Amino acid sequence: MNISDRLVALRREMECENIDIYIVPTDDYHQSEYVGEFFKCRQFISGFTGSAGIAAVTLDKAGLWTDGRYFIQAEHELSGSGITLYRSGEPGVDTLDEFLEKELPEGGVIGFDGRTAGVNTGKRFAMAAIKKNGTVSYRKDLIGRIWADRPGLPEEKVWLLEEKYSGESCTSKLERVRQKMKESSADVHLLSSLDDIAWLLNIRGGDIAYCPLVLSYLLLFEDHAELFADADKFPENVREELGKNNVILKPYDGIYAAVSSLPSGITILIDPERVNYTLYKSIPEGTGIIEKENPEVMMKCMKNDIEISNIRNAHIKDAVAHTRFMYWLKTAFAADGQCADSVIKDPQSAAPFTEISVSDKLEAFRAEEEGYLGASFAPISAFGSHGAIVHYSASPASDAVLTKGKMLLTDTGGHYREGSTDITRTVALGEISTKEKEDFTLVARAMLRLMNTVFLHGCSGANLDCIAREVFWKERVNFNHGTGHGVGYLLNVHESPVNFRWKEGTTPAPALERNMIISDEPGIYIEGSHGIRLENILLVCEDGENEYGRFMHFEPLTYVPIDLDALLPERMTAAERNMLNCYHSEVYKNVSPYLNEKERIWLKQYTRPV
Amino acid sequence: MNISDRLVALRREMECENIDIYIVPTDDYHQSEYVGEFFKCRQFISGFTGSAGIAAVTLDKAGLWTDGRYFIQAEHELSGSGITLYRSGEPGVDTLDEFLEKELPEGGVIGFDGRTAGVNTGKRFAMAAIKKNGTVSYRKDLIGRIWADRPGLPEEKVWLLEEKYSGESCTSKLERVRQKMKESSADVHLLSSLDDIAWLLNIRGGDIAYCPLVLSYLLLFEDHAELFADADKFPENVREELGKNNVILKPYDGIYAAVSSLPSGITILIDPERVNYTLYKSIPEGTGIIEKENPEVMMKCMKNDIEISNIRNAHIKDAVAHTRFMYWLKTAFAADGQCADSVIKDPQSAAPFTEISVSDKLEAFRAEEEGYLGASFAPISAFGSHGAIVHYSASPASDAVLTKGKMLLTDTGGHYREGSTDITRTVALGEISTKEKEDFTLVARAMLRLMNTVFLHGCSGANLDCIAREVFWKERVNFNHGTGHGVGYLLNVHESPVNFRWKEGTTPAPALERNMIISDEPGIYIEGSHGIRLENILLVCEDGENEYGRFMHFEPLTYVPIDLDALLPERMTAAERNMLNCYHSEVYKNVSPYLNEKERIWLKQYTRPV
Repeated sequence: MNISDRLVALRREMECENIDIYIVPTDDYHQSEYVGEFFKCRQFISGFTGSAGIAAVTLDKAGLWTDGRYFIQAEHELSGSGITLYRSGEPGVDTLDEFLEKELPEGGVIGFDGRTAGVNTGKRFAMAAIKKNGTVSYRKDLIGRIWADRPGLPEEKVWLLEEKYSGESCTSKLERVRQKMKESSADVHLLSSLDDIAWLLNIRGGDIAYCPLVLSYLLLFEDHAELFADADKFPENVREELGKNNVILKPYDGIYAAVSSLPSGITILIDPERVNYTLYKSIPEGTGIIEKENPEVMMKCMKNDIEISNIRNAHIKDAVAHTRFMYWLKTAFAADGQCADSVIKDPQSAAPFTEISVSDKLEAFRAEEEGYLGASFAPISAFGSHGAIVHYSASPASDAVLTKGKMLLTDTGGHYREGSTDITRTVALGEISTKEKEDFTLVARAMLRLMNTVFLHGCSGANLDCIAREVFWKERVNFNHGTGHGVGYLLNVHESPVNFRWKEGTTPAPALERNMIISDEPGIYIEGSHGIRLENILLVCEDGENEYGRFMHFEPLTYVPIDLDALLPERMTAAERNMLNCYHSEVYKNVSPYLNEKERIWLKQYTRPV
Repeated sequence: MNISDRLVALRREMECENIDIYIVPTDDYHQSEYVGEFFKCRQFISGFTGSAGIAAVTLDKAGLWTDGRYFIQAEHELSGSGITLYRSGEPGVDTLDEFLEKELPEGGVIGFDGRTAGVNTGKRFAMAAIKKNGTVSYRKDLIGRIWADRPGLPEEKVWLLEEKYSGESCTSKLERVRQKMKESSADVHLLSSLDDIAWLLNIRGGDIAYCPLVLSYLLLFEDHAELFADADKFPENVREELGKNNVILKPYDGIYAAVSSLPSGITILIDPERVNYTLYKSIPEGTGIIEKENPEVMMKCMKNDIEISNIRNAHIKDAVAHTRFMYWLKTAFAADGQCADSVIKDPQSAAPFTEISVSDKLEAFRAEEEGYLGASFAPISAFGSHGAIVHYSASPASDAVLTKGKMLLTDTGGHYREGSTDITRTVALGEISTKEKEDFTLVARAMLRLMNTVFLHGCSGANLDCIAREVFWKERVNFNHGTGHGVGYLLNVHESPVNFRWKEGTTPAPALERNMIISDEPGIYIEGSHGIRLENILLVCEDGENEYGRFMHFEPLTYVPIDLDALLPERMTAAERNMLNCYHSEVYKNVSPYLNEKERIWLKQYTRPV
């Protein structure tokens, strides 16, 4: 069944249900960043495989909205499908709301699966319908009806994260959350965000690629909790542990009926950013609704001291693996004259190095580290001009052969029992151009300046983002992504709400507090030529208090060299060179004990003062 | 009648009216920053003369809340009054709300003059009363009843700001505002913020010291407007001009009855930050209330090109006056050995220089400039350790004699027909200590860095504040005030909503747009020793657009030398020295044509490259 056939089938269902426009968002039922195969309805109906976008289908039209990252890919993937690409943010391009206003007939019906839309998105659709005196139909999954070979829901086993890793028992976490419920006068707290549930119950699973989470919902009452998830995934020891905390297992789908039949007159705490529209609409009339950020969000964002101690270890392991990878790669490319066209071949396999082969090698280095569980997100390995594509993902078709004279950008990370890592390095393979070195130096300066800044308690990432961007803006360049994101502990590698973003989102970034973890990853992207990003993970630390206030600073958790072959020290200020030298001295101190002699000599050279 | 007598009299009135707690805020009826003598009720009842504070009186207690700027002054002024000082923000000190909760009896009454409280403040008091099942009484001015010799309302004449100064006719402004009303579906727009009214009608007056405003309210309808103000202040030409725009004069106090009797079923646009509580409560039931920032706020904040051209001229005039003052002062103090104790005497009067005498001299230099109308705020002239008091105001009692070896901080400004200025300079009188020079250099670096930053369109002052503070925070110092404020055109010298403040207020600072004007004034304050602040006024300019976006930069409007005698160039980066040299070169270019030979030679020397 090709896309056109699928659209025909969908329209047949729409006609049966009297739906005029059917909208297919990208979300799973939990507003997760990454969604499992079962949930890829938007991809199924449109053929577009990007991670962000929304499709809308009328009886005679179909459109797909996505952002600048995906214009080229979407154009390619949509071609011949009969679906129009709407380039979000481009001037003159209708937004989805404008499309709905134009296309919805008076008194018409907008359909969507309300489980795949957040509360505010669902409300937006409802408002669009009301404008035309119409209604929404959000309880029917029309894609499910026509998707014959839809993958099943995952069946990965659930496991317990021991207290030596989590640093706090489930009992203690439940107590803290219930205290917050009490402060809000809430009788029950509904959770559907998978990382909040996993954090709270100290459970992990494997239901989403790269995210060790368990598909589930939770209803937390004052004296017990109901966990809605596939019981078959829960081994006896996990059930037992949950039982001790009075957490009762119920069927995954049972949440909707459970919410609908909550006793009347109670008060429920929900996070509208983290609950789907159908759940929200299932709350009985007469229930008091307290809309607040889940208390778990800030609790898990501020790591405890045991987590921090673990995370430090995980980052050292990761740094060792990454440094060994750099040694291996740089050494191979330092060898002269293997081949006339600058292609360097793996001495072992005699095959040329490619984006995927070196990425696999990096993964192999990580796999040698104790406690390594797997990649924390889809690795990016981008050579030459591919580096300029911010969300590049090498496929067998695009997999570039690495040659001398260009740069390789890797943005990768791992989950360890001791926490999750995320690191970007860009390295020169052989001699690169002066322009590339200038750009590399600019990125290094921005990254180092933010890492070394000192700030008063109360500052958010919105205040500090310009510390990194200032040097970019002076050169009239910019990068079109946030400078940093929070990092979860064996949860989501992109963990809200902390970030470095000068443009505030819908909810302002919170103040940076002790033991928060945030990435620092400026980049420069020259289309068709090269891309450079450098990313360290930072720990927010107390710096001491004096008569002027309470100061804070960052401590790097990432200890991997910044490629000196790509750097122009003369374009840095003395203070910036000092920041780099101090950092490199720490890199050597932290990593060298775990290296062999050759690697150690190499690292000494690559962490020399400039 | 001393303070105790006044409290007795107030309590007698409270008992008559069955009021348990009477609150006396600092505001006039228009939520102005500076209030006229008639409105100084809080000062009358407490004796505290600071510009910020709130008094609350029960039948047996009295308290005054003020912030850190005024602790010492308030302690002094309240001593013996029987009024307790509540140091706002200090740990363990009850807030006013906590005081109300403790002191208000069940079912009690909180009284205040609702005209002197903004909408949200009034609502806060009402909420405090409701918590005790009590009520508020906001229609009675009990201070007015007991204030026998209360000053009258000012009677200064109103004058028209010609279009060559305002750059836009009242007709055009009314049209733009009415368009905004239409977009909000508002039938009437109520204004009580004096600067918004003066801007809209192109009128100026003299009802508040330093603020050329007219005490008035405005009801703006679709086809006419009603201006509530003392008709005697309006000369014939002003009445005529207003008449042309269908603006009808009504008695000042008539606004309350006029609002109460608005026809039912209409929709009114009000700005809750800029309307008093009594006015708000006067709006009839059944009226649609649209609460929005006054449309005038952003319109007057983004100056038009004629205003900008005028403002540039005003700043050059001001720079000439200020430079001549610096020459005069520095030359006097450069003369050697006039006196053993380093006191320098005015060669003309043979009296020693004091804070007030030199401030008067600076005023005299300004008065020589064409179009000068007077000071734009109460001048600060602070010598030595007085400089560390951020809101210092020299009185005959405190007026310090200027001696060699210390610094003088002046924060002054003028109103010209071509706009308003605000400038702070700190100058060394003779040789100062290395510590003072280090601090001076830090302040200069911060000021210059912010002035020279480049940023993407969309940034607000909350994003950019850290550009100035970064160098402070690196040294673990800070200044406890905003880095900058908007500046009005012959209105309020502190004009919201633009600012440089990393801590957002109740409403986030807007994006910086072309033709906005903002101050850049970091400072350092060492109690008991010295204070340094440097302030330039900046114009927000377009910088050009490229593939990365639309860039913006600042252009200084202030052109007065930064005292090189107080500077340690070796503590600046090469880039910072370059910023200073470029700025000084512009200072010389812009100011020297208006100086005499001696002054010009001096300026050349004081703008030399470092």
